[in-house]
Amino acid sequence: MTLPADPPGQLHHLLDIQSLSREMIVRILDTAASFMSVTERSVKKVPLLRGKTVVNLFFEPSTRTRMTFELAAKRLSADVLNLDVEHSSAKKGETLLDTLRNLESMHMDMLVVRHNESGSADFFARHAAPHVCVLNAGDGRHAHPTQGLLDVFTIRRYKPDLSKLVVTIIGDVMHSRVARSEIEALTKLGVAEVRVVGPRTLIPRDIEAMGVRVLYRLEDALPDSDVVIALRLQRERMQGALLPSEGEYFSHYGLTSKRLALAKPDALVLHPGPINRGVEIASDVADGPRSVILEQVANGIAVRMAVMALALGHAGSKEHLA
Amino acid sequence: MTLPADPPGQLHHLLDIQSLSREMIVRILDTAASFMSVTERSVKKVPLLRGKTVVNLFFEPSTRTRMTFELAAKRLSADVLNLDVEHSSAKKGETLLDTLRNLESMHMDMLVVRHNESGSADFFARHAAPHVCVLNAGDGRHAHPTQGLLDVFTIRRYKPDLSKLVVTIIGDVMHSRVARSEIEALTKLGVAEVRVVGPRTLIPRDIEAMGVRVLYRLEDALPDSDVVIALRLQRERMQGALLPSEGEYFSHYGLTSKRLALAKPDALVLHPGPINRGVEIASDVADGPRSVILEQVANGIAVRMAVMALALGHAGSKEHLA
Amino acid sequence: MTLPADPPGQLHHLLDIQSLSREMIVRILDTAASFMSVTERSVKKVPLLRGKTVVNLFFEPSTRTRMTFELAAKRLSADVLNLDVEHSSAKKGETLLDTLRNLESMHMDMLVVRHNESGSADFFARHAAPHVCVLNAGDGRHAHPTQGLLDVFTIRRYKPDLSKLVVTIIGDVMHSRVARSEIEALTKLGVAEVRVVGPRTLIPRDIEAMGVRVLYRLEDALPDSDVVIALRLQRERMQGALLPSEGEYFSHYGLTSKRLALAKPDALVLHPGPINRGVEIASDVADGPRSVILEQVANGIAVRMAVMALALGHAGSKEHLA
Repeated sequence: MTLPADPPGQLHHLLDIQSLSREMIVRILDTAASFMSVTERSVKKVPLLRGKTVVNLFFEPSTRTRMTFELAAKRLSADVLNLDVEHSSAKKGETLLDTLRNLESMHMDMLVVRHNESGSADFFARHAAPHVCVLNAGDGRHAHPTQGLLDVFTIRRYKPDLSKLVVTIIGDVMHSRVARSEIEALTKLGVAEVRVVGPRTLIPRDIEAMGVRVLYRLEDALPDSDVVIALRLQRERMQGALLPSEGEYFSHYGLTSKRLALAKPDALVLHPGPINRGVEIASDVADGPRSVILEQVANGIAVRMAVMALALGHAGSKEHLA
Repeated sequence: MTLPADPPGQLHHLLDIQSLSREMIVRILDTAASFMSVTERSVKKVPLLRGKTVVNLFFEPSTRTRMTFELAAKRLSADVLNLDVEHSSAKKGETLLDTLRNLESMHMDMLVVRHNESGSADFFARHAAPHVCVLNAGDGRHAHPTQGLLDVFTIRRYKPDLSKLVVTIIGDVMHSRVARSEIEALTKLGVAEVRVVGPRTLIPRDIEAMGVRVLYRLEDALPDSDVVIALRLQRERMQGALLPSEGEYFSHYGLTSKRLALAKPDALVLHPGPINRGVEIASDVADGPRSVILEQVANGIAVRMAVMALALGHAGSKEHLA
Repeated sequence: MTLPADPPGQLHHLLDIQSLSREMIVRILDTAASFMSVTERSVKKVPLLRGKTVVNLFFEPSTRTRMTFELAAKRLSADVLNLDVEHSSAKKGETLLDTLRNLESMHMDMLVVRHNESGSADFFARHAAPHVCVLNAGDGRHAHPTQGLLDVFTIRRYKPDLSKLVVTIIGDVMHSRVARSEIEALTKLGVAEVRVVGPRTLIPRDIEAMGVRVLYRLEDALPDSDVVIALRLQRERMQGALLPSEGEYFSHYGLTSKRLALAKPDALVLHPGPINRGVEIASDVADGPRSVILEQVANGIAVRMAVMALALGHAGSKEHLA
């Protein structure tokens, strides 16, 4: 169902990490690094995408992700339209394909889509007109590629040699598109070892096929870790009683400073946000010196700017920062 | 209740097609044609309305219409504010007139208004300050003038000599402001014959006074038609049981390829959207070679840009495309 | 709980009137006066805040206030993001502090916050990063400083010598952050006398400590008044049955033309809006020659532009109007 990868050196859609080459991932990260200076300077704006139209098509509410894509587009000088599908024609029975065709007719250049069904971003990409770029902002349990990219971007800033790292991902891997995209990004970039750890009910049986090591006790997973990623407990995506209570979850899998001490002394702590304090992470860890959770948010805008600029063919040289 | 037409050669408000001269309609269509190149080029933006404030005041939800007005305004470089009245002071009991006065005090230049009561756009225009332009984006069953204009614009691109055309409008004419505006636009531009066809319960008794021919069987209406317009079944606007079921409606009035074969071989198919596939139109017709439904969407933005530019006094010369 | 005032000559946060020096208030009003010309000219835009990001963080819905801040920011060329917390992560249990930290990580420059709890703007200001300005757009019963500023701005345009004025504020002082900010602004600028009048249940016991004169009969309060401010009846903020009915309220405290005749012949009438006609004010007074209610709206944009420009350090010289 996945589209073939874009030709070498070109990015058109961004649907998942799997369809990106290692070279393209590195190019996105390098471009994002060059955009960091833009978001930190006084006039946070470059005219790269002036006159382009970016549509945020969100079938699933997500203020934070929508805002970071909107900010990224505006800082590239694009026009942004937010289309919250709760209030749109989709409720009048219009098909996804008709929604796409209508947006294309409005001459949009880029579609940022978030949907609760896996494969929906692929669907849009397969049917989109050639000039339209589709960016996946999260589809079901499948992928959330900009999250995976911003995570490796964040790790690389502190630990440039990824090939030696042990990265541990904690929690609800089952329902987490974030975990899938992180694992793919880390693996493609040649991380030494990726571990996933969580309750048996929240670890999918086939996850080892992704090249990760599966563990069920946090105390077994944390030693030697260079990076620890706590996943958000996706309560809204869980069906049935897969876990007993938030308190019990925290007692077994909550990232506390005592547990973090089992990892390497300079281990980084990441979380995709928004955090549930006292559920998947203790407050003193979230706010502590090893946490780069807020940097992930800042980096996320630079990474999204990079993806947008590369997809619309406007980056890669020095002039894009003028 | 309708305001007198604007002086020749000037457009201020756009409330319905009836109050436009034939010359003004042609001028809007010609201006829209010049804007088509803007929406198709890489930087889809002209600085014509820079520093102007356009307010989308929508009392009735309509994502598509709101988006096309917003895109038109942004591509003219205006600032756009969306005011969704579900969440506004109107709920706190403020009168329409107070809402208008407040928006005027904020120095807006143009008000795009959509409301479920006929005459509401007229109301705003009658009471607006002299510098404020009011554009009707649909008021009750009365008018939806930009839809009528974009339809004739679309037809004219394929069949420039309108005086020879037979145009057939199918469906719920009773509840359709779109049909009213289409009939007026076609009649003003001297179309040879406009036919309306639909169930007796959905054709108003006095519609012949608009200069149309009324028919009740699709098979009687389609022969010799150069243009076929299928109306959306406005289920949300119907009170009581005026029609039996969607299936039965489709069996009698659905535009299928078999029925379309009764029209001229080069007949165009239009629909204001969003379409109900299998209700008023068959999928193979909607997606077929005669359908210009998606072009209507694209043309709608150019037409709305033209109306905005003319109303704010900034079009008519070559320089508006710079 | 309130932060210390900014150093002389500098504005960073705007939390309440109390923490502003008299000199700063005058400077804001003078800057606002210079912006009046911008909002009235054809291209209502200056590039002062180009590339700055302003976030409207509204925990309490208010279309009008949100629009005026949005317009002010857009007319200064800032990028504006509206964050309606009803649909945001705050519903997922994120703390206020986490919301702030995340917005900061997105490199916003200014936070306009409205919240139903007193002290929430202070909270954000206390915890904000040094480069982030916080503007209070209304917090609980505490303060609504831009409203107080726009009121004195409006009064000063008609009656430049404030030291001789008697100003009467009518109505629900108990629940009104507007009244608090008005009283503080008027007092700081040296108004001769501020009177508050309303039902005993709606006048807080300790209000005299603010330097006002308390009265309970409108007929006692209006004589000699140069300015009359009718407050909105904040029905949504009242708990329990503090007043009998709207009709009874109007019969005792409604501002009618007969009652207005008790004030000075050239008395101004103000109201923060949206007005309840026939509850706190009669229609002929709201629309009459002494009413400056709509001018308050227009002035509010200029005042908000001034506050934004001063807080971000870009006003004070002639060049800011270029």
